[in-house]
Formats: sequence, structure tokens, C-alpha cells
Amino acid sequence: MSRIRILSLVVVVLSAGAVSQPSSQSYDSLAVDIFKTALASGKAYGTLHELTSGVGHRLSGSPQAAKAVVWAKKKMEEFGFENVHLEPCMVPHWVRGAREKAEILMPTGARIPLKALALGGSIATPTKGITAEVLEVHSLNEAKALGARAKGKIIFYNRPFDRTKFDTFEGYGGAVDQRGGGAIEAARVGGVLALVRSMTPRLDEVPHTGGMGYNDSVPKIPGVAISTVDAENLSRLLKSTPKLKVYVRTSCETLPDVPSNSVVGEIRGTEMPGEVIVMGGHLDSWDVGQGAHDDGSGVVQSMEALRLLKSMGLKPKRTIRVVAFMNEENGTRGGRAYAEKDRPGETPLVAIESDRGGFMPRGFTTDADSMKFLKLKSWESLFRPIMADRIMHGEGGADISFLAQKGAVQIGLYPEPARYFSYHHTNEDTFDKVDERELELGGACLAILSYVIAQEGL
Amino acid sequence: MSRIRILSLVVVVLSAGAVSQPSSQSYDSLAVDIFKTALASGKAYGTLHELTSGVGHRLSGSPQAAKAVVWAKKKMEEFGFENVHLEPCMVPHWVRGAREKAEILMPTGARIPLKALALGGSIATPTKGITAEVLEVHSLNEAKALGARAKGKIIFYNRPFDRTKFDTFEGYGGAVDQRGGGAIEAARVGGVLALVRSMTPRLDEVPHTGGMGYNDSVPKIPGVAISTVDAENLSRLLKSTPKLKVYVRTSCETLPDVPSNSVVGEIRGTEMPGEVIVMGGHLDSWDVGQGAHDDGSGVVQSMEALRLLKSMGLKPKRTIRVVAFMNEENGTRGGRAYAEKDRPGETPLVAIESDRGGFMPRGFTTDADSMKFLKLKSWESLFRPIMADRIMHGEGGADISFLAQKGAVQIGLYPEPARYFSYHHTNEDTFDKVDERELELGGACLAILSYVIAQEGL
Repeated sequence: MSRIRILSLVVVVLSAGAVSQPSSQSYDSLAVDIFKTALASGKAYGTLHELTSGVGHRLSGSPQAAKAVVWAKKKMEEFGFENVHLEPCMVPHWVRGAREKAEILMPTGARIPLKALALGGSIATPTKGITAEVLEVHSLNEAKALGARAKGKIIFYNRPFDRTKFDTFEGYGGAVDQRGGGAIEAARVGGVLALVRSMTPRLDEVPHTGGMGYNDSVPKIPGVAISTVDAENLSRLLKSTPKLKVYVRTSCETLPDVPSNSVVGEIRGTEMPGEVIVMGGHLDSWDVGQGAHDDGSGVVQSMEALRLLKSMGLKPKRTIRVVAFMNEENGTRGGRAYAEKDRPGETPLVAIESDRGGFMPRGFTTDADSMKFLKLKSWESLFRPIMADRIMHGEGGADISFLAQKGAVQIGLYPEPARYFSYHHTNEDTFDKVDERELELGGACLAILSYVIAQEGL
Repeated sequence: MSRIRILSLVVVVLSAGAVSQPSSQSYDSLAVDIFKTALASGKAYGTLHELTSGVGHRLSGSPQAAKAVVWAKKKMEEFGFENVHLEPCMVPHWVRGAREKAEILMPTGARIPLKALALGGSIATPTKGITAEVLEVHSLNEAKALGARAKGKIIFYNRPFDRTKFDTFEGYGGAVDQRGGGAIEAARVGGVLALVRSMTPRLDEVPHTGGMGYNDSVPKIPGVAISTVDAENLSRLLKSTPKLKVYVRTSCETLPDVPSNSVVGEIRGTEMPGEVIVMGGHLDSWDVGQGAHDDGSGVVQSMEALRLLKSMGLKPKRTIRVVAFMNEENGTRGGRAYAEKDRPGETPLVAIESDRGGFMPRGFTTDADSMKFLKLKSWESLFRPIMADRIMHGEGGADISFLAQKGAVQIGLYPEPARYFSYHHTNEDTFDKVDERELELGGACLAILSYVIAQEGL
């Protein structure tokens, strides 16, 4: 294919009728300038390379997380942000340990290795591991219903992520209770370990970790994820060999909470500095891969958005503040601490998060009420040049949910969701999986939206 | 992020006003079914794996191209298509040869290797290679203006692909004349070789091949692409060392044309079988990588679209025909031969091509006139569940341009264009760069559009 002429005329005619939007007209050319600047000289990709390659993965409480805090502060200072500082929070300190192993023990004596990762927050198995028969279930209710049969067994949660959901986040939401609550329900009926099918629509050999919960009313048992290919194989083998045993050994543990920090910088508003637009992602990641899409992308896009505005000499009327939140993955302590801190004279007007990967932006989701929603939609045309013009109802992000409770409108960047759960919480979530143009355009979307809100309010 | 509610209500309200579309309403649930079937049990990804891993790259005239023809015919038969057959065409037979090398010769005696690929259709250098001084230009006109200075020199075309274009195909279109016509204009002023910056918005070490032309009025000189990183380095070195020489050796040659085939299969229309919707991609590729995005994706998506319709028991009123075109890359002989063939009793109503990579679909481009364009736009809602609902003015595809000349409306699938030119015509265009969901959803889009046109006409 060579040159393609895209006449946006009809698209414009189609949508212009709905909401009278004189205010957005003056921002149209600015938005184009911001997009073009991001494509020509954006720094999000290089910044992400520093974070992923220079720091690597960075689970809360780890030395890398501490290194990431230092890096983010230095970077915000380098970018010339105002009031760059740390905001402390105590964070959980879970460590994986080095001794992870999982195998199917065949009656023949053969041992089939399973690609496995302990779930975040899990206790370890005994040093010698756990060897037990396996009961397969497809829901927490099915686990509960096992009753006495479950005693001494490994409970294997194998309800697939529904790959037919058009929004993969919906598929994730429909399966993730097995990871979050599986160990609790397994322990309640006497199970000794929760083995969980990884949260991905793909059929592949990549195990996905992620947070799991315990409940004081039942014993703690270990939780471990296995790849979807292994889950399918195990399920098939269980049909032909019901007494099949699985061996699992993990050496993870939860150490005492440690102090950590979110990192904050801003451009102070020229006219209404007390009205604040918070924009961020989370600086921590799981302890695998490089946390490139989750959520290095969101952190660098937020920083890049502010850097772009600054580099273009734009002076917002309201304050735009970037927060690299600590500890989204296993506690959201940074988001909570940020929201709880007393900030006299300040109103948290809007909070914007990028935590759905650094993929091609398609729009935003928001919990804005009907009037504010229409105001946001009146700015859709600003994002039309890159086809990211869908303002939709939805959540903002875990870190900013606490600000929403304090009255801020929450908005989440919504990138193309097809590939997110190919990498989410895995060793595959590395820098090379992020596309430069897609990442930079996401940063530009944040710049445009935050600036327009800073000028026009919401 | 967990569950996100996307209310499409407002989007629907926005667009419903433009075109009264009672006919599309009945297709809404069918479109959802087709998308879900594609996500649940689509075969495009597996089919692409067969083509890319089983056959590999497949330049016209190569043994692999012949193997691809056999494979495609067998696959269409396996899928149960009707009237599966080959349609012959003579194709160019250019071979790269094994001896490609390019180096910067520093005055110090150091030799800096360049990542290079001969351009398709190029003649070879003499066996001992070409060693010459380099003149950098940024356009064909600048080359023309060199005059006598160019004699005996390597002409280095270094105008970048404009990465600030929102549609990367536009960036490509704005740079590719250097590749297509560079050797002609260099030869006209006495240059001995055209060295061309690769056609990509990325700054990386990957050389991109692609077609180049000759003109009978001037001598033929070799054309060679170098990576963008090498182009930047060479440009920088030329500023400090104007007499710098470059060494290039290639061993490519054009052999006599050979017979080849496009591969055709169809579902015969139940009511108006003579009105035909042609749907295809091109079976050939360049002789690097695996031709996964360009255009294995388009071939398997077209086949998958027909397979989906068939597997769901849908019987189109008009004939839907899949064509795996031979020789798009360096001759479009298959597309031409298909269009020129006499087909008594047949009208080529619409031709749909997928040749922009297997990325997430965002809509279609078409040359339809105003009334037909509005009819197509009235079906946009069918593609809204996956946000691929943009019907835009534009081209269809090189292979089907000959059918357009015979009166067919041409339509091109328009996937997200951000990453296409990261892989286009390179060793990087391999199966692992294609995402399963994105590929399958593209196939589903073709199934929906072709079926609706088969039922409703255009």
C-alpha cells in the first residue's frame, strides 16, 4: 500500500451535531501540535528504557523499587518539574525466594515440569514441598462445594479467561477471583494448596503472577499460578489419571513492612493553582519481567505528558501534578497515602491514570457524572487525528480510586486492550514489547487532556 | 485494572443521526456472533503459522512461492471452499544471491559494517564490489541537480520517513520515491550506485528492502537499502570526512520470468452468483523474514473470513471469492491477470483487500462514490463492538486496483498502522510479531463486511 487519503470530513459531520463545543475548536491545532511533537521528539520511550533496563522489575519493598524512587525523582528534576518531592508510605515486603518448582508426578514415575510462579503474597510450601492429589474446579463456589473430599488435596482452579470478551479487561475481571480468593476457599474445605490457571486469553507457556488474598478465619495455604498450556495438559491428564499427584515447592515469604515513597512533581497553575489535576501511573511492578507495560508505561507517559507541555511553553491555569504511585500491585498504599494526606487550600479536581499498558491509545474511561461526561465528550475531536477519540464510562485506575472518593473525577487512559494480558505480570513484560509510537501517543493524549482540563475546568 | 463498563450508548446516539440504517440492525447480532466465533475458535493464527513457519518467505519465482501456491490450494480445499483452482500468471524472477556486503571505509583504514539489503529488482555490483565516494541528497530533484559532481559517486538518499504523520502509510508515501526512482536519477547524473535510507519511522538497525525501478533511457546501477541508524551515522561521518568512501557488493540478478499462480476459492452465491465480492491478500512476499504481516496476514484473514462464514452455516446471496494474489511485491502480475481474465456472466461488484498488516482492525478505506460510501458507512455500527467502525475514503489495495478499473468498488481493511513499518520488507516480519486476537478480529471484519455486501449489494 502506498498513500492513503483519510478524509475525516464525514466523521466530523457525524459527531458535531451532538454537543456544541466551541471551546474545543481552539484546542484542535494545539492537539495536533502536541501529537506531532510527541512523534518527532517524544522522550517516553527513552525514559521507559532507562526504567526497565536500568532498574528492571521493582516489587514494593525491593532494592529495585527503592532505586526506581531515586530514579523517578531525579528524572522529574531533570525534566524541570516544580516541587519535586517524595511522599512516604509503608509498603508490604513480599519476596519470592529462589526455590520455585512444580511438577506433575505421573504414575509411571515420570515427572512433567510445570511453568509456575508463586502468587504474590503467598506463604511458602514446607521446605520439602507439597505432594498431593489434585481436584479440578472452575469457580470458588465449586471449591466450597467440594466439602470433605478436598481435605489434603491441591485445589486446581481452571476456569478460563473468557477470550470472547471484546474488552480483555472484562475477561480478566471474570476470571481473577480464582487468583484472589482461591487459596481462601481451598483452605476452607481442607485443601493444602491453590493451583491457579494463569490470567490470560492466550494458550501459551507463560505463567502469570499477581496478588492473592488470605482470610483470618481459615488457615493460610500457598497459591501458585501455572501457564494455560500446563493447565490444559493437567486437566486432560486428570481425566485419564484421577489419582494424579502434583509436586509444588515455593520459598516465598512476607517480611515486615518497609518504608517507601511515591514520587511527585508538577507544573503549578498560573491562575487557580489550588485546583489540581493529578496524573500518574504506578512505579512498582511485580517481580518478573521488567514491568514495562505494567506500569512503567503509565509512569513514563505521565512524566512525558508534563514534560511535553513544559517543553512547548504551555502554562496551565490549574496545577497539573504527576504522581508515580508506589505499591499499586500489592496494597495500593501509595495511592491511599497520597489521597489521605492533608493538602490545605487544594482541591483534587481530576485524577488521570495510565495503567492499561503502553499500547495505541483509543480513548479514555471515566466515572464523570452526566454533565461532566458531556464536557469530556465535547473534547473527543482533539483525539480524532490519531483515532483515540472515545470517551467512555468506566473506571480510572486503582491508585486514583482513593482520590475519586475525595471528589475527584477519575479518568483512565484506554489503550487497545488486545495484547495487555499477553504480558501482564509475566517475565514477558519487557521493554521490547512496547512500541515507540504507541507509547509516545499515549503520553501525548495525557498531555492534551490534562492541559484542556487545566484551562477549562471540569 | 479490573472490570470496565463501556457504555456505547452515547457513541450510538452520535452517529445514528447521519444515515437511516434499518438494514444494518438485523446484522448487529450476527456481527457479534462472528467476532465471538473468531475469538473463540478462529483459525487465522494457526493458518498463518503454517504459512510462515512451513513455507517461510516466498518471493515471486522462488521455490517457496511455488510451495505457497500448493499450500494455499490445499488449505482452501481443506476449508471446503468451492471451485478451488489456480489462475496462472508469468512473474518476475529476481534472486538476491548470497554475497551482500556494505561498509564505510574510514580514512584510518577502519571498515564500519553497514546493515544493508539489495533493493528488489536491482542489478548486482561487479564481483569485486563498488568502492566510491558518497554524495548525500534528500530528494530525486537534489540528485538531478548534482550534475557532473555525481560522476563515479555513490548517491546516498537520506530523506527520512516523516514520523510525525499520523498515518504511517502517508509517511511511507512521502519517502518511497527515493527507493523507487533513486537509481534512475543517480544514473542520469553519472552515479554508480543508489544507497537508500530504509523506509521506516524507526531509528534502528534493520534494513528494509522493497521494489525499485529502472528506466531504459539511463544505465542501470545497483540500488541498496541501509538501516536508519547506519544512514544517520553515515550522514554524520560525511560531514566530518567529505571524501569518505563506501564499499558495496551485491550478487542479485533478474532471471527470466517464470510461470506462477494466484489461488482462488469461493462460496457460490445462492441468488446472484454472478455478482462477485472478491476478497484477498497477496501470497508472495519479499525474500526476507517470513512475510507474516506483509502479507501472510491478509491471505489467511481472507481465507479465514470465508471459512468463518461457512462454518457458521451462512449462505451468501452473492458469490464471495477469496483470491490469494501472486506477485504483489514486484509486479502485481497476479492481480492484473485476475482482472483481465474473461469471466462470462460475472460482475466484479466489490473487491476487498487486506494488505496493511495483521494488526488490530480500526475500519476500512474505500474508493466508493458518495452514495455507496454512505451505504458502507451505514454498516459502521457492525464493527463498533471492537472499535473498528471507521469507514474512510482511501485506496483498497494494489492487487485489487485492476478490478477497480473494471468497475468494482475497492475496499481495504484498515488496521492500526503504528507498527507496520517496523517490520515491512525486513527480516523482522515474522510470525511472532503478529498477535492472535488482532489477526483473528481482522478476519472477522472481512467476514462481516463481505457477507453484508453479499446480502445487500452495494
